[in-house]
Amino acid sequence: MKLYDNAFAPSPRRVRMFLAEKGLPFERVEVDIAAGATGQADFLAINALGEVPVLELDDGTRLTESLAICRYLESLHPQPPLLGTSPLEQARIESMVLSVMFRLYVPTTHVFRHTHKFWQGRLTQIPSYGELARQQVLDEWQRLDVHLGSSSFMAGERFSLADIVAFTTLEFGKVAGIRVQPAQSRLARWRDSIAARPSASA
Amino acid sequence: MKLYDNAFAPSPRRVRMFLAEKGLPFERVEVDIAAGATGQADFLAINALGEVPVLELDDGTRLTESLAICRYLESLHPQPPLLGTSPLEQARIESMVLSVMFRLYVPTTHVFRHTHKFWQGRLTQIPSYGELARQQVLDEWQRLDVHLGSSSFMAGERFSLADIVAFTTLEFGKVAGIRVQPAQSRLARWRDSIAARPSASA
Repeated sequence: MKLYDNAFAPSPRRVRMFLAEKGLPFERVEVDIAAGATGQADFLAINALGEVPVLELDDGTRLTESLAICRYLESLHPQPPLLGTSPLEQARIESMVLSVMFRLYVPTTHVFRHTHKFWQGRLTQIPSYGELARQQVLDEWQRLDVHLGSSSFMAGERFSLADIVAFTTLEFGKVAGIRVQPAQSRLARWRDSIAARPSASA
Repeated sequence: MKLYDNAFAPSPRRVRMFLAEKGLPFERVEVDIAAGATGQADFLAINALGEVPVLELDDGTRLTESLAICRYLESLHPQPPLLGTSPLEQARIESMVLSVMFRLYVPTTHVFRHTHKFWQGRLTQIPSYGELARQQVLDEWQRLDVHLGSSSFMAGERFSLADIVAFTTLEFGKVAGIRVQPAQSRLARWRDSIAARPSASA
């Protein structure tokens, strides 16, 4: 397997963590987003959407979208389970994955795009919208700090893809100035427990 | 099964279409979003996020997030398959579902929230951001018009959840003034084929 990857982007990091948790070997191909590589013809021939990650199988088949890639890997390599083992547990984990994606990941990307100087001159920035998205992100992390008072992991008592998605989103948030707040001790405890896993540095 | 639902919202409509395609009976509970019902204590006790749909099973278990609900239903009622039957087909369908959610559905909700008079005084609106999101939506439908030149459905030659997600997003877009353009004949052909299914009026 070959992963078209980027060392700094949150979406391919989800897949790297997932592969590491599964103990699956793969070849890494770094795609230099900052230098514009995802918009160039040779990469667009690999993924017309100009996005990483792309997982290329040994027969050349290419898969896109990090969450779809993770589910494909889970189907072929069910141990250790990261997407749940019963339909009900699968629904609970997927619900939390999607909630984190829509309520945290998407607005975090918007804070970055609309407020960070990296994007000045590259994209239309609307800083007032970026600040609105920032408040949404801060409110949601606060809600999850409370949630983690009654749950060891994001979706119950077992590490899952929901933790990978939330952890990589929190890490990505640093670039947009989003941090765990001093009073968020449950969120900090969870973050430290995920950061201590070998997959966190994958 | 009981579905906490709303007749006008796109997310519960996905689940209604999915249930209709599967031929599954359910009890409908209308939740009046416009009157603020999703923010009231009795509904927040059902879903703390204040969102529909919620699927309540006969034992009282509640599931949230439309896509997680659909996958749960697919696990219990695999026929007709709407999420693919092999890991590879499943990955292809999920990739398209997610792509439509992130590249079309989310920005369509933003066009609605930031430009529609319904939200005036209810939410902070930033119309310039709404127009940016509108352009993203129009560009993406144009890309999908081209895509449908080589594919009968959104994710290959079989109707799937990707069609449900795209169709309900297109329908929802009407409220934000988003329409199929006269030159987009392939998109119009696909839309008409989905609209002709009995599930489209579920």
